[in-house]
Amino acid sequence: MTSLAPTSLAGKLAGFADHWNPRVVADYNDHEVRVAKLEGAFIWHSHAETDELFLVLKGAMRIEFRDGIAELGEGDLLVVPKGVEHRPVADAECHILLIDRAGEPNTVGQPSHLTRQALERA
Amino acid sequence: MTSLAPTSLAGKLAGFADHWNPRVVADYNDHEVRVAKLEGAFIWHSHAETDELFLVLKGAMRIEFRDGIAELGEGDLLVVPKGVEHRPVADAECHILLIDRAGEPNTVGQPSHLTRQALERA
Repeated sequence: MTSLAPTSLAGKLAGFADHWNPRVVADYNDHEVRVAKLEGAFIWHSHAETDELFLVLKGAMRIEFRDGIAELGEGDLLVVPKGVEHRPVADAECHILLIDRAGEPNTVGQPSHLTRQALERA
Repeated sequence: MTSLAPTSLAGKLAGFADHWNPRVVADYNDHEVRVAKLEGAFIWHSHAETDELFLVLKGAMRIEFRDGIAELGEGDLLVVPKGVEHRPVADAECHILLIDRAGEPNTVGQPSHLTRQALERA
């Protein structure tokens, strides 16, 4: 039988507790589908060669840009275009789905203590 | 200011009622993020050159394969790999998020009355 079992996003999120450490849950056309828990402020960064897709699954967050802020609640989606500097912030814990190019580090170009180079699979 | 307004998936879904007619709600790295309402059975088809991502936002659906069935509830995600024949079915109305390569018809290779070649934007 084709091995095509659905992935429960809530189930994957229940499997870890740390913040700002995305887990890869599926592969899609040279991209990785990831889930993450956010709380607090991330760092300013941009992805030179890939758009980044955010979908809020639980809670709320904002994405700060150099010239504005996007507020995202549950079920809100935003694609940050490649090259655009942004800083994700969550005042309280927020669960998101992310899509990035396969292998893309979470803080590409701006290494910090929050950098995760090789993401775990959940 | 950077034009980066979040997209409410529920808001987009509230804007139309027809089934099996995906709307494009965002662009992501040469792909289209789409939302759709499903009810009943679609046709058997495959996408030779693109994976297809399904995420159930509301309700439940199943994806039939030639050798098995995947049952998806709310918050369940499944990537159908390129080339794999599948048939989406929803016994009651189901709302989903889909990602396909930009311009990919919904029934590529198997044209039918359900084919949507140029998708509307919502």
